Amino acid sequence: MTAPWITYRPELKVLDCTVRDGGLVNDHKFDDDFVRAIYQTNLEAGIDYMEMGYKNSKKLFPKDQFGPWKHCDEEDLRRIVGENDTPLKLTAMADAGKSDWKTDVLPKEDSVLDMIRVAFYAHQVSEAVDMIRDASEKGYEVAANLMAVSTNTEQEVDQVLEVLSESPVDVIVVVDSFGSLYTEQIEQLTKKYMSYAKPQGKEVGMHAHNNQQLAFANTIEAIIHGANRVDASMAGLGRGAGNCPMELMIGFLRNPKFKIRPIYEALQNYLLPLSRDVDWGPSVQYNITGQLNEHPRDAIAARAGNEKEDYVGFYDKLTSDV
Amino acid sequence: MTAPWITYRPELKVLDCTVRDGGLVNDHKFDDDFVRAIYQTNLEAGIDYMEMGYKNSKKLFPKDQFGPWKHCDEEDLRRIVGENDTPLKLTAMADAGKSDWKTDVLPKEDSVLDMIRVAFYAHQVSEAVDMIRDASEKGYEVAANLMAVSTNTEQEVDQVLEVLSESPVDVIVVVDSFGSLYTEQIEQLTKKYMSYAKPQGKEVGMHAHNNQQLAFANTIEAIIHGANRVDASMAGLGRGAGNCPMELMIGFLRNPKFKIRPIYEALQNYLLPLSRDVDWGPSVQYNITGQLNEHPRDAIAARAGNEKEDYVGFYDKLTSDV
Repeated sequence: MTAPWITYRPELKVLDCTVRDGGLVNDHKFDDDFVRAIYQTNLEAGIDYMEMGYKNSKKLFPKDQFGPWKHCDEEDLRRIVGENDTPLKLTAMADAGKSDWKTDVLPKEDSVLDMIRVAFYAHQVSEAVDMIRDASEKGYEVAANLMAVSTNTEQEVDQVLEVLSESPVDVIVVVDSFGSLYTEQIEQLTKKYMSYAKPQGKEVGMHAHNNQQLAFANTIEAIIHGANRVDASMAGLGRGAGNCPMELMIGFLRNPKFKIRPIYEALQNYLLPLSRDVDWGPSVQYNITGQLNEHPRDAIAARAGNEKEDYVGFYDKLTSDV
Repeated sequence: MTAPWITYRPELKVLDCTVRDGGLVNDHKFDDDFVRAIYQTNLEAGIDYMEMGYKNSKKLFPKDQFGPWKHCDEEDLRRIVGENDTPLKLTAMADAGKSDWKTDVLPKEDSVLDMIRVAFYAHQVSEAVDMIRDASEKGYEVAANLMAVSTNTEQEVDQVLEVLSESPVDVIVVVDSFGSLYTEQIEQLTKKYMSYAKPQGKEVGMHAHNNQQLAFANTIEAIIHGANRVDASMAGLGRGAGNCPMELMIGFLRNPKFKIRPIYEALQNYLLPLSRDVDWGPSVQYNITGQLNEHPRDAIAARAGNEKEDYVGFYDKLTSDV
């Protein structure tokens, strides 16, 4: 695996979060044809993991208001992937505070999922660790996604990493939820995460948002400093400014198992049509919330409303002291 | 200027190339209102330099086929800026092989321009140095933009830098014409350019293209390694995938003389309307030419034609061996 003629890092794994993060723009109401196309694309492109959606609560997110990828019921998953007898591993994300994980995350032997990713804010770390233990005991590979790390003090981050490093989690992910972090900050965070994860045999991941057109650059930066698990999505589909575009990531990586042509097919046949109905990507409003290190919710609202082209009004609103 | 409480680099200067590079998408046919708005925006935003266009040949680029910003005649410049009695310095670019620079670049005392930027490919370095000497003797500040450096060998780059370092040029600019360079390569190039420029009292600049959504990240990287002159454009307007977006650059820089609100006004009132008629930005075709380290001309043609949405056909064409 470390033969000197290999000019890539074989242990670097790519996770496609198109349906999971992208579903935040349409309440996870993708039709089966779209999800099946992304699954097929990931298979053909040699992607390592596909995140099918959330394992979130049906009480908080009723089935009549949200699409099937908010809950990833086993019957919905299997309608797309069958038994998934492929090299592509499947993941779902469960949010602390929003998931009935004790009952909804099935024992691994009853599920086609391979991995559970636990998403949480720093103050939810205790529930997160309970979720990690639960998923691990049920037989899954487990990742921990500390969201909005750009809003935490260094001490808070250290405390969370300390706790995670002693948990059975397999991967700890640097998550730039607001797309506010510059490359130098990604370097510092990746090194910090590595310092807790590596001695425990855990991997570090990177999940970027593209508010300042830095998602791809920041993901490369995390790779340079040792992250072996990176998230990307087709055409960068994801909430608000979206994620690191898969087509750029696969163009960068040198592992010959990755194929880029199937990704262009998916962009042309599925993402381009979707872009006519749904708004995502690094527009001015997302630039602004990223620069201000704020949740994108105001930008999402502005872009959905009549003031979509009132950049100045949006800037004035977000920088007003009243 | 180096007081310890200053958390920015006062000597870092920003150049707006909206009209010059952006004019490559419309044969420099901007109306006066647009150019005046960009000029006014730069004044209000505290930008250091504005590139008004090219000083290129009227024989090669006839006046009846190209707008006034292809030639930057004095009367056209003064119609917009008067005597330019402002802190904003004005530049124009002259291309080696495409400029009647001996006659068309006037003595500085007869021109409202402050700086001439000489653009050239490595094989044109001899004419470039003649142009640099000419402009310097005429009284201008002078910059040298070695284009398409991503296609040169390291030895070629060293030879050009050796010659430039002995010329009267004031600024040597790292130019990623094809938007193909990753951040690590920008680091290496910036350090190399610095090693030739700094001992001669010259500055290093950065001109990025956004094919892989790396223009902003790469410009920050050049700054980190010592570049004190950076190019950006409003909404990233520029040929093909465009340039480093000014609204992102000014959001990053901490010098309080820079104001971002006027830039949002320009985006809203001028660039957003322009985007309905003209195509620029990091579309899939530009991703592909960037990844392949190729001139964007095929991508520009594809995006102007009926095959604009045929990403796969474009990829197949550019990777075909026949």
